[in-house]
Amino acid sequence: MLDRFRTAAADRRAAGLRRTLWSRGPDFDGLLDLASNDYLGLARDPRLVEAAVAATRRWGTGSTGSRLVTGTTSLHTELERALADFCQAPGALVFSSGYLANLAAVATLGRGAVVISDAGNHASIVDACRLSRARVVVTPHKDLPAMEKALANRHEEHAVLVTDAVFSVDGDMADISAMSALAVRHGALLIVDEAHSLGVVGQQGQGTVHSSGLFRESHIVRTITLSKSLGSQGGAVLGAPEVIETLIDTGRSFIFDTGLAPGPVAAALTAVDILRNQPDLPGFARARASELAATARELGLETNHPAGAVVPVVLGAPEAALGAAATCAAHGVRVGCFRPPSVPDGRSCLRLTARANLSSDDLAVIRHALTAVAES
Amino acid sequence: MLDRFRTAAADRRAAGLRRTLWSRGPDFDGLLDLASNDYLGLARDPRLVEAAVAATRRWGTGSTGSRLVTGTTSLHTELERALADFCQAPGALVFSSGYLANLAAVATLGRGAVVISDAGNHASIVDACRLSRARVVVTPHKDLPAMEKALANRHEEHAVLVTDAVFSVDGDMADISAMSALAVRHGALLIVDEAHSLGVVGQQGQGTVHSSGLFRESHIVRTITLSKSLGSQGGAVLGAPEVIETLIDTGRSFIFDTGLAPGPVAAALTAVDILRNQPDLPGFARARASELAATARELGLETNHPAGAVVPVVLGAPEAALGAAATCAAHGVRVGCFRPPSVPDGRSCLRLTARANLSSDDLAVIRHALTAVAES
Repeated sequence: MLDRFRTAAADRRAAGLRRTLWSRGPDFDGLLDLASNDYLGLARDPRLVEAAVAATRRWGTGSTGSRLVTGTTSLHTELERALADFCQAPGALVFSSGYLANLAAVATLGRGAVVISDAGNHASIVDACRLSRARVVVTPHKDLPAMEKALANRHEEHAVLVTDAVFSVDGDMADISAMSALAVRHGALLIVDEAHSLGVVGQQGQGTVHSSGLFRESHIVRTITLSKSLGSQGGAVLGAPEVIETLIDTGRSFIFDTGLAPGPVAAALTAVDILRNQPDLPGFARARASELAATARELGLETNHPAGAVVPVVLGAPEAALGAAATCAAHGVRVGCFRPPSVPDGRSCLRLTARANLSSDDLAVIRHALTAVAES
Repeated sequence: MLDRFRTAAADRRAAGLRRTLWSRGPDFDGLLDLASNDYLGLARDPRLVEAAVAATRRWGTGSTGSRLVTGTTSLHTELERALADFCQAPGALVFSSGYLANLAAVATLGRGAVVISDAGNHASIVDACRLSRARVVVTPHKDLPAMEKALANRHEEHAVLVTDAVFSVDGDMADISAMSALAVRHGALLIVDEAHSLGVVGQQGQGTVHSSGLFRESHIVRTITLSKSLGSQGGAVLGAPEVIETLIDTGRSFIFDTGLAPGPVAAALTAVDILRNQPDLPGFARARASELAATARELGLETNHPAGAVVPVVLGAPEAALGAAATCAAHGVRVGCFRPPSVPDGRSCLRLTARANLSSDDLAVIRHALTAVAES
């Protein structure tokens, strides 16, 4: 019965696509963390830790049920108000994972519509498109004319455009203003995943829709994650009351999932508070990302002009990416290593992530590691 | 753009299918909790709380990335060993949600096979079947001949049978021994969701596969949740090394999701330890469930003979179920109220869940509430 899995594993091994889980210690095994999505360095911030501790003591270790049964504590409601308020959205709905937030938003709101999805969108959006049972049109990365064509030529009455705001590996930004205008022109809903832009893009880190001045547009739905710049776990959908109500009534990954545990809820709530009170944090993260990319470019490595905190270093073959990640580790730096299916064939890469709290000493260590990569 | 959502909401309202989120306090607003999935009463156990507190202080509030990048702490590895050891499974893989564990198991292992799924399976299994892109055959609830027919008549080389062990609302149990024999006879994989059986079914709560003596069978894959009897958050897949490796390499909801936060990991780990040291807990939960069902039956209400801790009280129309839930609340008891799409049309019900720590005073309060339901 298991033969087919053994055969497939052998094929993946031959193609350099086997993955191994390694356990890290609390201090990232003494390596400099340039791999996590903890863009603001909040995941070990004492303020988040103590908020999670207090909430766990007060509420317990689990939310005990679906949000619709016993899984909504007044802490969840407080977080939803804080997120909506911070991002200037009419409403917010918290999920136990950003993956599940995307599944609910796209699959529920896309039902019966045509769903037009950027080829670079995150796996959770791709899965959500499949779950919508809608006709799905995947358009080439950031190809606005292709999106417009799909909107204009549709036979469905309804349409949903969906995109990452900042793409998770390439680190580039979608043109949200142009997509919003397209959506209005063609009577479509626009869903924007702010996973990698919340806390990083915009003056105080309210994300791309906000920084584009589009937060009042009722045709835009945003999804966010609490597990990246907010240093916790979970996700949320931000949108009009009609959208939130639709997800509460019919969003399968909302109705049938256990609510987020109280500790992570409290940690995310504190992170929003920190973002309000330290408005310079997002700018620090973006500046560190620009410096990382500049270093990589200077060394002749293929990289991007980062829109947020994500800086890829493209190496091509899976083995080359694995080798470069090992070189970085040997030089004291933990980086992400992305191979198919996380990236297209021939685009295996390192994924460096900037943190607001990287020091100039840290940047010197990173330069040293990238120099070794460039020379190998 | 939002008109279609307003219209659909009005239709749901007319059909009695609007849902409202209510926020609860830490003490369930002074009501007796008969609605949560905290079957062993561990979600507020001081041992779990202090384990989560210590882990949050040591590791921080988030795991900071995908399990394959930075999201696997040595605490995750320890939990995986403890779960595998307790359930006598060859290996375990932890997810941030049971929903995502089911998506990965069924969608990944079902790829290219025919997937045969019981009509009563949980929404996360239904979604996982859709994501598998396999041909899916939904067989009537617990209909072994229909399953055998689908296995025998398939044109695919591979087949996957999938079932809940204890069904989430009806609370009845699948015949795992018969299904396992069917799977062997037809060269199929059997995936069993132990969400509502772990911690409740079997001598020490190791679940249905274990209590059926089938834990050594490499053709059986189990999924579990950490958010019900284990009082925390998250889920896991238990199975042969080939299965775990396949999920690590290709399970989309594993690869592309942030790892479970350290606090919930530590809480679940402590819950497993408690189950080892208090082997009478699962029996208490089952006994309380039997008493609840006996009370309901005695009062002329339609209920089940519970296999685990779930006791439905079927009322038929959505409005009748809502009314009965309100009656229970007026008598001091919080119960679950399940309406379509959570249950089939005409099967709206209360869902009572037993807890190992319900007292005889609690049971008297419940009898009082159910009497009022029966008389209304």
